[in-house]
Amino acid sequence: MSILIRNVLFNEKPTDIFIEGTFIRQIGQDLQIDADVVIDGTKKAVLPGFVNAHLHAALTLLRGFAEDMPLEKWLHEKIWPAEAKHTDETIYWGTKLTCLEMIESGTTCFNDMYFRPKQVYQAVSEMGLRAFVTDTLFDFFDPKKTEQAKRLTEENLKLAQSFESTVRYIVAPHAIYTVSGELYKWCADFAKANNLNMHTHLSESRTEYENSIKNFGLSPVKYLKKLGVLSPNLSLAHVVWVDDEDIQILADYDVKVVHNPQSNLKISSGYQFKYVEMKEKGVTVCLGTDSCAASNNLDMTEAMKLASFMQKAWRFDPTVLSGQEVFDMATINGAKAFGINAGAVKEGYLADLILVDLNQTAFTPNYDTVANLVYSANGSAIDTMICNGKILMKNRIVQGRQDIIDSAIEAAKVISG
Amino acid sequence: MSILIRNVLFNEKPTDIFIEGTFIRQIGQDLQIDADVVIDGTKKAVLPGFVNAHLHAALTLLRGFAEDMPLEKWLHEKIWPAEAKHTDETIYWGTKLTCLEMIESGTTCFNDMYFRPKQVYQAVSEMGLRAFVTDTLFDFFDPKKTEQAKRLTEENLKLAQSFESTVRYIVAPHAIYTVSGELYKWCADFAKANNLNMHTHLSESRTEYENSIKNFGLSPVKYLKKLGVLSPNLSLAHVVWVDDEDIQILADYDVKVVHNPQSNLKISSGYQFKYVEMKEKGVTVCLGTDSCAASNNLDMTEAMKLASFMQKAWRFDPTVLSGQEVFDMATINGAKAFGINAGAVKEGYLADLILVDLNQTAFTPNYDTVANLVYSANGSAIDTMICNGKILMKNRIVQGRQDIIDSAIEAAKVISG
Repeated sequence: MSILIRNVLFNEKPTDIFIEGTFIRQIGQDLQIDADVVIDGTKKAVLPGFVNAHLHAALTLLRGFAEDMPLEKWLHEKIWPAEAKHTDETIYWGTKLTCLEMIESGTTCFNDMYFRPKQVYQAVSEMGLRAFVTDTLFDFFDPKKTEQAKRLTEENLKLAQSFESTVRYIVAPHAIYTVSGELYKWCADFAKANNLNMHTHLSESRTEYENSIKNFGLSPVKYLKKLGVLSPNLSLAHVVWVDDEDIQILADYDVKVVHNPQSNLKISSGYQFKYVEMKEKGVTVCLGTDSCAASNNLDMTEAMKLASFMQKAWRFDPTVLSGQEVFDMATINGAKAFGINAGAVKEGYLADLILVDLNQTAFTPNYDTVANLVYSANGSAIDTMICNGKILMKNRIVQGRQDIIDSAIEAAKVISG
Repeated sequence: MSILIRNVLFNEKPTDIFIEGTFIRQIGQDLQIDADVVIDGTKKAVLPGFVNAHLHAALTLLRGFAEDMPLEKWLHEKIWPAEAKHTDETIYWGTKLTCLEMIESGTTCFNDMYFRPKQVYQAVSEMGLRAFVTDTLFDFFDPKKTEQAKRLTEENLKLAQSFESTVRYIVAPHAIYTVSGELYKWCADFAKANNLNMHTHLSESRTEYENSIKNFGLSPVKYLKKLGVLSPNLSLAHVVWVDDEDIQILADYDVKVVHNPQSNLKISSGYQFKYVEMKEKGVTVCLGTDSCAASNNLDMTEAMKLASFMQKAWRFDPTVLSGQEVFDMATINGAKAFGINAGAVKEGYLADLILVDLNQTAFTPNYDTVANLVYSANGSAIDTMICNGKILMKNRIVQGRQDIIDSAIEAAKVISG
């Protein structure tokens, strides 16, 4: 299939974009090409789709389930008991709902850290998004569970060999306070041997940091270094509590960092994310929303705005983390972190694109499209989205939307009841 | 005119709302009443419209005009030179654009701190919103300018006597670093004599706070106290830099505080807003967006979210400033601050209402409508808005929208060129 987007704003100029199969083939003015589908891009801007680099998809069913509570009480009394009631069906509909929300807000690729990858895969592939899926690993330092986690991952990899190329398996041990060093080391070896990416939570809260010092005698970053698991294929979610030495280590090993401003703020894990220091040392920082149980939506536009606002605020410096920089975090940096040829509107890149509707107050006037997207708009500005060369939303219409919403409401009752 | 909203979610139950003239007359199940207009409220929730308690309306024309710059450079090289080019026409279209954006995001009442109240009044009354308008006063400590500011205000009050009842004049000296004590005192007397509200910027930045100590020997709050201008009719925008004694003074005089989280973060004036201390002492805190030149949109839903997130974050406490509390800041507290009988869905209150579309991912699932609005949704969730008993938006359609956007783009060229 081929798509021609006519007269769309690209680098602030009207441009045509020609997509063939799954790639962007040609970008230019007044292209003389026939295409199966022609999209009128007038009063719209073309931008790369977002890469949401950290979330827990089916947790969207617990959006707003338990608010304004202390963290431990929230987890033990509300979230974990509800999660224990998940079935294949609730995971499937929770993930479909998540995909719908991401399509409607311009995310073309995401990294899911949850369970039941078979159901997640089914939902994601039906929706047409690009994704990394997993079966999050825990062993709670129990050698029996360590072995179970290894076997589970080996089996999942077999399952994942039947996945379409847009969905890849990722190895994801949960966190250093729930996963043994032995399992972390095995995961790193397994990921390397099978050419997989690896993902884990790290240094999210002050408590985690202090316990790491107490239990391992090292900061979380230095502990992972000692285990020998740091590599360019590893991405770490949060990384709020780090010192200069930790950041230098992340740079040395080219480890990718996923900043999650919404959840860091809402559950109060830490607002002083060290973006400036990471940038100085050359660490690739990308962006995630975290789950809707923690931070309530999957809107990457909101994540960009919060990341920039917070960075400016706590440093008392309005010049840091500009609109363009945070936009790069949400797009090209995420693509780099996960090794996909996307995150930019360029010939030869994957056709993972969004068209932003400029005919709205958020873009009036429009001195700078990216600045307006980041600072003024929200996810509802996305009019059309194309992933892997397929149109998943046009004029804000997504096929099957009402059925997903209705079924997700029923699925939410199963786990919240 | 009368309006009957049928089967709308109110306090989480399906309810009918009957509006007659400008008031909410009856709330109940299955009301047996005829009305001129019947609105189907299925899959919608009714809530009070927002009160945006601090902004500079026509500055919306400079949205995104100058980003990520140091404050002084931004003001001196970009914003002030552009503002100097304003004409009656640019003020009019800038205000129309602002009203359109507020209608589309659920704000029924706002407090404008700008210039040319005649043009602002014309724009606001055409759009049907409730507003406080002004001619912001400066004298730069020059006695000649002090007298000019007084005469201007007296003339404006005469003009304002022809305003519709939905628009009121407010006395608004700019700030303690641009306005003399003499003018502040005169404003307070004038406001009292004419039963007007008074509004000013206060304690926005650390620089302002430190200069106040240096120049007046007092904190900004104590300086205003010494001048004798504190009263329940006074609202103060920002109030970031205050100590416990300042907060006690604000409570003693029942002065209202307007928190502006977006601009406080983006222009880095201060993120540690002392909401908890103000609440403890009984200070009424309401919410504003500030201008689009500073913080880029007028979305009160975003303002609520940021206020709550920031408060939780800097205190490392996820329980503070709950969804319901910040919703009250954005509605009933704003109404209280400006002395209008609105900000709640109650019989006998002004019919300033919004209908929120629940049939979207942001409200799926919907355990708690207010929490989902604050933490998950954004202004695009507002489906219908009624102000003073008139429908200003229905199913997201506002009359005259395209003309306002097109004309505002032209007006923006005049001041930015």
